Amino acid sequence: MKIEIINTGAELMLGRILNSHQQWLCRQLADLGLTVARQVAVDDSGPAIVQAVRDALPVDLILVTGGLGPTSDDRTRTLIAELLGRKLHEDSSVVAHIEAFFAARKKRMPTSCRVQAQVPNGALVLSNAHGTAPGLVLELPVGADRPGLGCLILLPGPPRELRPMFTNQVVPIIKERFPNRERFGCRTLKTTGLGESVIEEKIAASLEPLVREGLEIGYCARIGEVELRFTARGTRADELIRHAEKIAYEKLRDRIYGTDDEDIESIVIRTMTENRLSLAVAESCTGGLVCHRLTNVPGASAVLKAGYITYSNGAKQETLGVRPETLATHGAVSEAVVLEMAAGARARAGTDFAVSVSGIAGPAGGTRDKPVGTVWMGLADAEKTVAQRCFNPYDRETFKLVASQQVLDLLRRHVLARAMAPAAQ
Amino acid sequence: MKIEIINTGAELMLGRILNSHQQWLCRQLADLGLTVARQVAVDDSGPAIVQAVRDALPVDLILVTGGLGPTSDDRTRTLIAELLGRKLHEDSSVVAHIEAFFAARKKRMPTSCRVQAQVPNGALVLSNAHGTAPGLVLELPVGADRPGLGCLILLPGPPRELRPMFTNQVVPIIKERFPNRERFGCRTLKTTGLGESVIEEKIAASLEPLVREGLEIGYCARIGEVELRFTARGTRADELIRHAEKIAYEKLRDRIYGTDDEDIESIVIRTMTENRLSLAVAESCTGGLVCHRLTNVPGASAVLKAGYITYSNGAKQETLGVRPETLATHGAVSEAVVLEMAAGARARAGTDFAVSVSGIAGPAGGTRDKPVGTVWMGLADAEKTVAQRCFNPYDRETFKLVASQQVLDLLRRHVLARAMAPAAQ
Repeated sequence: MKIEIINTGAELMLGRILNSHQQWLCRQLADLGLTVARQVAVDDSGPAIVQAVRDALPVDLILVTGGLGPTSDDRTRTLIAELLGRKLHEDSSVVAHIEAFFAARKKRMPTSCRVQAQVPNGALVLSNAHGTAPGLVLELPVGADRPGLGCLILLPGPPRELRPMFTNQVVPIIKERFPNRERFGCRTLKTTGLGESVIEEKIAASLEPLVREGLEIGYCARIGEVELRFTARGTRADELIRHAEKIAYEKLRDRIYGTDDEDIESIVIRTMTENRLSLAVAESCTGGLVCHRLTNVPGASAVLKAGYITYSNGAKQETLGVRPETLATHGAVSEAVVLEMAAGARARAGTDFAVSVSGIAGPAGGTRDKPVGTVWMGLADAEKTVAQRCFNPYDRETFKLVASQQVLDLLRRHVLARAMAPAAQ
Repeated sequence: MKIEIINTGAELMLGRILNSHQQWLCRQLADLGLTVARQVAVDDSGPAIVQAVRDALPVDLILVTGGLGPTSDDRTRTLIAELLGRKLHEDSSVVAHIEAFFAARKKRMPTSCRVQAQVPNGALVLSNAHGTAPGLVLELPVGADRPGLGCLILLPGPPRELRPMFTNQVVPIIKERFPNRERFGCRTLKTTGLGESVIEEKIAASLEPLVREGLEIGYCARIGEVELRFTARGTRADELIRHAEKIAYEKLRDRIYGTDDEDIESIVIRTMTENRLSLAVAESCTGGLVCHRLTNVPGASAVLKAGYITYSNGAKQETLGVRPETLATHGAVSEAVVLEMAAGARARAGTDFAVSVSGIAGPAGGTRDKPVGTVWMGLADAEKTVAQRCFNPYDRETFKLVASQQVLDLLRRHVLARAMAPAAQ
């Protein structure tokens, strides 16, 4: 079973646009139990597209994206028809669809659009609910041992046209053509606070028996976190993954903050919402990023009452009540200041929790005792204030992202502890 | 001249991660006058990587990303060495670098990390300023007609390691190896506030003579902005682009906020710093994103004194002095409230300027009169307060991004007007 994706477009090869099709299509196919063997991006000129299809043969399924539009640089349809020795004809249902598309928008249909109704003989037409260019399904010559299995599907380039077309029309075709797909399981555990080599040290030996039975382990270091991925195939896939997940939780405990597509801010908002806990945030070096991440979560307003971006010492004093002598004695990046910031934010906003962060993002501002990358963060609730120091010697934007992750993780662990404690408030 | 990019990783083929390397590397190479012929993504298992390199030959330059880390699924280094018939040895300077990397972070070096010091014989080592895995440059066998030209460069997967390594170490190698590149010029004008078809209507006719001489025009609609791109090749490239740029500025005026990789927040911080102007920000629906974007700019602390994330009505009253009757009469998303927010933030922080924003990000919270996507923003300086209403009916994160762009553009235009006014303060 061999699947390839071919993405076409000059803008891809000039680096003017991010190719989001690869991830999206690979993910959809993986969820169907199918793995893409290779993805290729080429210029939309003739030779490159045709060569890419030739290189892929023999193949069970090729998905080609882009080059179906109305302008002169959209050549995929014609080139593929030529390569497969098919003549083109005008499909009257596609003409009617394009005319209706423009009529609904009260716009004149440019003559050039009619070229999109040209269909290679024998092709199946996939209607486009969000645009004018239809998708096309063509049979491919494959090896004599697998006659009639190969399939080439042309999809339009714009994601909002491609995605529903794939989900609604291509997935049923794939399911029908490849009925005996092997069960594929994939589970991602999202961790923070440990490096990937440390994680491997902690879990590898215990997982070894499962690996011998077919479990695959992947490690992916992202900014401020490491993703640990378990995949397996076949009838025992789910069992192997469940078992691996259990071992990982035993070894890594609360270093795992979530699974699959969860992010730490969603988990914080969800846990605090469920426990009716409110939050205030006082940020210096992260400059609003902690609040920004939290407010990306729908429903954040039930939790986050106020944020204070106290970038200057003056604002730390005026807004949060940090004492001038604390700033003078310890400096703005210090345990004493983040504790006063957290307590001040909590008092001002009248919330259950407050977190605070102050550090040196750089590139300037570092000293011998407090080099660029130094960051203090604090947390206050009704019973206590706590602080922790981290060191993130990275570029400015990475520093902010890692520091925001550490603040959210500090909050997550305290909120979880509170949520799991007996009802004593 | 043939260049290929090979991106490796199971997480790519399973669709768990977006491949940002393709765009970034293609863009950097295009700026050097080099076009990538093909980009391929494959699984990080042995046969696929080796096959991808074989398929690329003969070739002048191959860039391979990923698979240089310390974990068991990082196999690129060994596989490529095998393919090229090179033995590996431990490079003592790389060992020293890895040890120093962990020592600087006061962390123990896991034994597994040492594998990253394995270097194929004859390879040039590229030091990694932001991680442990070095890059590697290897000579390739190419066609007999072009001996010694081929070059394979292995780069680490994490973008914050790959990007500076490419810019600082790979670009000089490429320039030396390929000295006779055709002049390639590319200029991007960044606009906000106009759609791409409106921009085309305004400029296309005037640019037509330049297009006949070889100018290429590209339009790229991004979130909250449109990039207008001029490219040309050959000895007249720069002249054509300069001429096109002059015409674009005449037609689009202050709708162009910057060029190439400038962003609007950098321009705001730079202009305000030069004019010694200070700023406070009051955010509701954008939840910290305006402050986050401004504080991504090094030196932002000279301008931004305080930010107030007043997500709740209580915080709007308590922190910014918005009157309860204004909230009751007009609602939190209204002209009256953003004017009071801006004035309140400016008074509280004692700054020259303040901006404010309040809107309905959704998915919930819309009404018939104020549907999801409605947003008001305000600005206050010593002489006036102004407000504007926008409508951004998008998903939550897009809404926040577009609204933050509109706030920053409102500020940019007022700051520019102030900066260009006669010295009357």
